[in-house]
This record gives sequence, C-alpha cells and structure tokens, in this order.
Amino acid sequence: MATSNQGGKPLILLTNDDGIAAPGLKALVEVARNYGEVLVVAPDSPQSGQGHAITITQPLRLHKVDMFGGIEAYECSGTPADCVKLAKHVLLKDKKADLCLSGINHGSNASINIIYSGTMSAAMEASLEGVNSIGFSLLDYSWDADFEPCKPFIAKIVSETLANGLPGCRLLNVNFPNKPEGGIKGIKVCRQADARWIEEFAEATDPRGEKYYWLTGKFINDDPREDTDVNALSNGYVSVVPSGHDLTIEKSLQPLAQRLES
Amino acid sequence: MATSNQGGKPLILLTNDDGIAAPGLKALVEVARNYGEVLVVAPDSPQSGQGHAITITQPLRLHKVDMFGGIEAYECSGTPADCVKLAKHVLLKDKKADLCLSGINHGSNASINIIYSGTMSAAMEASLEGVNSIGFSLLDYSWDADFEPCKPFIAKIVSETLANGLPGCRLLNVNFPNKPEGGIKGIKVCRQADARWIEEFAEATDPRGEKYYWLTGKFINDDPREDTDVNALSNGYVSVVPSGHDLTIEKSLQPLAQRLES
Repeated sequence: MATSNQGGKPLILLTNDDGIAAPGLKALVEVARNYGEVLVVAPDSPQSGQGHAITITQPLRLHKVDMFGGIEAYECSGTPADCVKLAKHVLLKDKKADLCLSGINHGSNASINIIYSGTMSAAMEASLEGVNSIGFSLLDYSWDADFEPCKPFIAKIVSETLANGLPGCRLLNVNFPNKPEGGIKGIKVCRQADARWIEEFAEATDPRGEKYYWLTGKFINDDPREDTDVNALSNGYVSVVPSGHDLTIEKSLQPLAQRLES
Repeated sequence: MATSNQGGKPLILLTNDDGIAAPGLKALVEVARNYGEVLVVAPDSPQSGQGHAITITQPLRLHKVDMFGGIEAYECSGTPADCVKLAKHVLLKDKKADLCLSGINHGSNASINIIYSGTMSAAMEASLEGVNSIGFSLLDYSWDADFEPCKPFIAKIVSETLANGLPGCRLLNVNFPNKPEGGIKGIKVCRQADARWIEEFAEATDPRGEKYYWLTGKFINDDPREDTDVNALSNGYVSVVPSGHDLTIEKSLQPLAQRLES
C-alpha cells in the first residue's frame, strides 16, 4: 500500500457535503478507519447543492471536534471544496493524503448530479491535487438512511484503490441503490448517464407579502445506453464512474475552428 | 436565424456571476442588444467562485430593475445557476431562449477555472436545458477593466452561433487576453488546459482573538500541449473551448471493470 504517513499506514482524508454531523459521514468513518489513519474535515453545516463553490471573499474557520471515537476531526465554515483545500494547506501541510473519501451522501450523485454535488466537488478538488478520490452517495435522501448495505462495497473499492491505485483516472463517482442488506447485486463500472432535471419553482408569498420561489424538480433519464450509472442503479447495482475534469468536446474543435478562426 | 420569439428576433438570455451591477454585464448587454431581444437575469450580489451551486434550502427572490436602457432585467437573490433556472421556469415559461450569454466575467475562466466559475456554470445550466450558451471572460480581475477590445469578437461569435448553431456541442468557454484595442491577434479554438492552482491560505487572527484562514493562490500551467486555451491566451488570442458536461473517463472503464466487477 502507498503510504505518506510516518506510521506506515495510509492517510485517508474524509469529507462530505451534508455536514460534520451527518450519519453518512459517520458510516464512512466506520469503514475507512479499518484501512488507515483517518483525518475528517467536513463543513459545519449542510452544503448540499454547493457544486464546486469555493470561498474567496470571506475568511474560513476550522474547529477541532471530538465525535468520531478518537479520530482527528475538524468542522470548517466553508464549502466541501474549501474543506479539502484547508485540509491540504493548513492541516496536512507537507504530508499528502493517500486517498480522499467524500460522503456517504444522503441522496444520488449519479449522472448530471455530479455537477451540482458538493460531495463530488470535494472529491474532485482532492483529485486535482493529485490524490486518488472517491465520492460515495446513497439513493436515499433521508437523514435516517440505512448505510449498512453500502459498507462491504465501500470496503472493496477502498482496499482495491489503496492497493493498486486507479487506472487512468483519479476520481470515482460511486452511487448505491437504495436496497436492504443483501439486496445489492454487485458493482457495475459505467459511464455518466445523460440524464437531467425537469424543474419547477413553487411560488408563494412570505409573511411580509413578498413573492418567493422555491426550487423543486424531477429527475428524468432519457439516455438509452445500457452502460450508464442510472441504468446500473435502477437494476440494483452499485455504479462506479471513472471521472475527470476535462470538459473539452473533442469532435467540435475542428468544425468550430473552421467557422471562427477565419 | 432561429427565433423562439413572436417578434421574430432571437431571444437572448444574459447572466453573469459578478452581479447585476458589474460593468462586464453592461458591456455584454451592449453587444447582445444588436442581435435580438435581450432578457437579463443576474445575481443581486457578486457570486464569484460559486461553481455550479444551486439554492435548494432557501427561497429565491426576483426583482425587476431598470438599468440597461429599456432592456427587461431582473436581479435574483440566488446563484448564477439559479438565475438561469428562474429565467426559464418563472419568466420565460413556454418561450425558449435562442441563446444564453454569461459574463463578461471580470477574470479568467480558462482551463480548470471552468469548474469553479459561476459564469461558466450559468452557461452550462442553460446548455443542459438545450439552449446554446456562451460564457465570456476577460483576463482582468479589476472592476474597471476595459471590455471594449472584446466586443468585436463577441459580436462575431454571437452572430455565427445565432446563424449556424454550435457544431457537436452546446457550450463555449470564451476567454479574452488582457490587451488594448487592436492588440488581440484573433480567435483560436482550443482545448481546456490541464493547468491548476497552487494555493495557500493567509492565516490571521480576528479582533475577537479567533484564528481565520483566507484563500489565496497562483495559477500554474504545466500542460505542454500547444492547442490549449491557456497557451492561446498567453499568445494574445481569444480562446474558445467547446465544452460539455460528461466527466466520464472512457479509457478507465474497462480496466476498472476488471478490478471491481468480479
């Protein structure tokens, strides 16, 4: 196993976007502590839907907390991506994490949700810093979601990644179907589905008589390909999408150059 | 030209992340109004670094403003992505914008900045809704930046896109070098550079005696490829990167399946 740590054990950075008190983070700590020395740096409040937001116009705070049975842990006043940056630059300094785990998110980050997700952005932030990173999400938005069925699959993915690295990428987007123990069929490595949200805004009037809007929506998958994350999940598999950060559309380069460079 | 609008003129949605009062947005309105009917929906305060954040735990507000010489305009209490969602669902309803323009951002969104950028996330949000979208950014962070040299290039890219659509993509990331009028050499269509931020946190103590951290950083391009946006910009060209939202790393699918699916 790769080790950056003087004790010889892998150093594993944990974060999330549901906040330091989220049960999903606790579940992830419970698995990760079997594989190395764990450092938790998580937002001090829920940060769902924060995407890859970073805090540049305000100061950030870090407070040490004791809530994971002896594991070193901090709550941070910023976004998930801020947590990863602060962990690297303020807490770890010249040590480098061997692995970053983010989650377990309460709710899906499959398909286009990767773009809106604080959980996945934290993992991506670590991957940009050269650290292999994995975001985990369960397709159950409730605070009381049952994370137990996820644990053997997290253990497998974490131990495999610590032993052999990631092939050709530095980031995995892992989602779990909402199934009871024994109900998950296995792991499928797949591509990001081209699914989308059909949104609406609930419109209402506040006690001061001012109109407001509240986002609501429905997730629609009209991607017909079989090898997508959304399809794997609806068939009862854990989806694993190797992910990056290069958004270039290769096939558009040449036709666009013909039109615009003249 | 494509038209969704009863008047027969293209309907162009404008937004940004520097806020409704930013000079860069005013400059973009000045160009866009020559090409169609313009609707402005922009954040009521600066939202730099907001990434693809969306507001799901709070209500959103929209207020009509009159600050662009007769152009219909609204300030919104949410993020740049929220602005685009509200424009579609609350203001446009069954009309569909023909084009979304975001910016002109005060500062670079080349390379990995696309991930952190509210400007680009607003444009991406519109592209996810099926609207051709272009984010514009000038490599000058100052409020008093001179946007005049950008205007002929914006005019060219907007008129070309309205006339012929975008080939194989729905989103362009356009950045302008910081050059005086006549100093820009032309347009280069290019790929997203694999550049990154080397960050630090300034550490200080507030008047209450509590420690805080403030993000600071330096942008480093160690991507040796010649056809990147960062390279085009440093050679004095406007960079245009056709961009998408599929983060899947194709080459990792098969080796990862071998390891994890067994």
